[in-house]
Amino acid sequence: MSQPATTLAAGSVGTVETRYLDLPEPVHLDCGRELHPVRVAYETYGVLSPQRDNVILVCHALSGDAHAAGFAKAPPAQSTRDGFGAEERDGAAGKGLGWWDGMIGPGKAFDTDRYFVVSTNLLGGCRGTTGPSSTDPATGRPYGADFPVITVADMVRTERAFLDALGIDRLAAVAGGSLGGMQALEWAVRYPDQVDAIIPIASTHALHPQGVAWNAIARDAIMRDPAWQGGSYHGTGRAPDAGMGLARMVGHITYLSAPGLEEKFGRRLQFADDVRYTITEPEFEVESYLRHQADSFVKRFDANTYLYTSRALTYFDLARQHGGGSLARALEGVKARTLLIAFSSDWLYPPAASSEIAEALGGLGKPVEFQVIEAPYGHDCFLLEEARQTPIIKEFLAQGGPR
Amino acid sequence: MSQPATTLAAGSVGTVETRYLDLPEPVHLDCGRELHPVRVAYETYGVLSPQRDNVILVCHALSGDAHAAGFAKAPPAQSTRDGFGAEERDGAAGKGLGWWDGMIGPGKAFDTDRYFVVSTNLLGGCRGTTGPSSTDPATGRPYGADFPVITVADMVRTERAFLDALGIDRLAAVAGGSLGGMQALEWAVRYPDQVDAIIPIASTHALHPQGVAWNAIARDAIMRDPAWQGGSYHGTGRAPDAGMGLARMVGHITYLSAPGLEEKFGRRLQFADDVRYTITEPEFEVESYLRHQADSFVKRFDANTYLYTSRALTYFDLARQHGGGSLARALEGVKARTLLIAFSSDWLYPPAASSEIAEALGGLGKPVEFQVIEAPYGHDCFLLEEARQTPIIKEFLAQGGPR
Repeated sequence: MSQPATTLAAGSVGTVETRYLDLPEPVHLDCGRELHPVRVAYETYGVLSPQRDNVILVCHALSGDAHAAGFAKAPPAQSTRDGFGAEERDGAAGKGLGWWDGMIGPGKAFDTDRYFVVSTNLLGGCRGTTGPSSTDPATGRPYGADFPVITVADMVRTERAFLDALGIDRLAAVAGGSLGGMQALEWAVRYPDQVDAIIPIASTHALHPQGVAWNAIARDAIMRDPAWQGGSYHGTGRAPDAGMGLARMVGHITYLSAPGLEEKFGRRLQFADDVRYTITEPEFEVESYLRHQADSFVKRFDANTYLYTSRALTYFDLARQHGGGSLARALEGVKARTLLIAFSSDWLYPPAASSEIAEALGGLGKPVEFQVIEAPYGHDCFLLEEARQTPIIKEFLAQGGPR
Repeated sequence: MSQPATTLAAGSVGTVETRYLDLPEPVHLDCGRELHPVRVAYETYGVLSPQRDNVILVCHALSGDAHAAGFAKAPPAQSTRDGFGAEERDGAAGKGLGWWDGMIGPGKAFDTDRYFVVSTNLLGGCRGTTGPSSTDPATGRPYGADFPVITVADMVRTERAFLDALGIDRLAAVAGGSLGGMQALEWAVRYPDQVDAIIPIASTHALHPQGVAWNAIARDAIMRDPAWQGGSYHGTGRAPDAGMGLARMVGHITYLSAPGLEEKFGRRLQFADDVRYTITEPEFEVESYLRHQADSFVKRFDANTYLYTSRALTYFDLARQHGGGSLARALEGVKARTLLIAFSSDWLYPPAASSEIAEALGGLGKPVEFQVIEAPYGHDCFLLEEARQTPIIKEFLAQGGPR
């Protein structure tokens, strides 16, 4: 099932630069407010066909950004390939690499010899797209907690408006993992006539209550940090780093699997073969690793964006929002072909969630393929298991045939 | 397999009062320090036989106390039956009930018509036994973070010294869930000639790295709270309630199971059938529940005790501490009959951990029984599944025969 590593490493989209586009119109949000101005940070890879029919939109997850592939031309200080997964990949070769570089490029799963791949930073983000750290035109100060509460649908509306501004009407595919997969699903439901295919990976139609709980704890960790200051920490010289570090640690463990942690760390101690009898210092390697992940995350990410994005992904509920409580009804209008990929050890977005979507689509007679990849690395698999996702995605896209 | 509820409700040990005993000698700790004075809070149920051969020691888990059964005579303000599990049981009937009342009493699993059941608050506790909030004789102030870092072995040494003071040499059984089960295992290894049987429930010989990580996050949540003040918060008018609330929320979710949360809360919203678009307020019932649990926990528990107890249970490692890395070698000297109980949905102390102990003991030709109870409520099952544990434990104890 896996391809030779050489095939995957073969193509790079090269050096890329994030660009910015200001939407001409306000974005109307689910909460009733409208947002204006809205800037969108984006990157593109490959060449747009004259018929404009080879566009694939790639959507990122909670803490990602527009830099999905290639080498960043001028990597921001805080940019690493750790786009949003638990795993840092900060070897020398990985510096400035896009978060899905293994999947996007010439000959890769999203083949830039054929497709024009577009990646945006999502609405509410902190990496170029308008979000809580952007300036509120009403006050001249950062929005902070005055930023409107947004939804996955609002993210997708923004992506739609962005593509309109680029002159792109139809999408050959929308793909993404986790929250990115939610956006793909929302695209298929909201704009059925403009999406040929969707590829939601390690995603769900509605996060299960344990996942809702983990997200609530992560948000509370940020908001209970006195340095959060009700969301108005910009310009105060203080930021809720302690709380966001905790949020990241919680997220981190939910992105991995218990067997994966066993394999990676076991119960190895930091020093020698005995404990040092300390409450404050890490004793186990896994404890030290967690603190390192927390420290590196707070350097590159905005706490309010974490809050807003986490809230949006817990709200997401296709059945409630589009089907009066029925998933099948929510999916009735879908016209896109659907490829669902899930990972056996992913307990945050378990295969069962994808299976429910597959069954609902199948029951409606819609074209759907569901693949579960056996792999031990939990939710992070969607970032790590490039070799095994690649042939599945290539074949699925090829079935779409030439347009 | 289950007994009629009437059988379980039949017996109560009645109204009980926690008592206190000061150990005559210092306790020598694994870390090299010694602790003196040491006071132990305890309760007893049933009658000590003239031969003093009917004693069962019951050991509590992370946040429990000595009040294991019956009604508290003068329940401390902070006492509820929520001894240490995720589930509050604060109905009117539950006020002041011991944390294992369903298991201890006339005719119950630990039958007080036959056995003299002893329950102590563990070393490092905050409910009467010497711990970080006790007065350090060297300074006249609470120990705080100057309290020595303790281990499960130190807890067991303290229990041994306490029983010596009571004139009790042998134990018919040591039983406990979670950290309580670790104490039971330590008893069998450390004092093989003084323990006839052990019953570790929902426990392990060494917490797996994911569990180590959850505990590290919970401790970090407390220590990152500025109100923790390096552990010296006593008398300052501030306490790390925000951080300990977070720690409790993390613990809470690990004590339950994903299917249990699905069954109990699903994705039900707090208000009406739509979200209110708020970052700061709970939207889902499970979010509100978590905050309630956090708030009620901080009213009754000491943050430093949480830190020390959590550290002790992550340190616990029978193979490392007693077997040079080999579990079998660690268990070589065990003479007690062993009953291990685990719960199918417990992912914090999974059945696999108990299975490893059972296999190691079995391989050594030692008498061991291992029961996995199918139940959906996660680690908390050891507090909830009284009806199904009772016949297993009764039969196991009966096999010990009359002494």
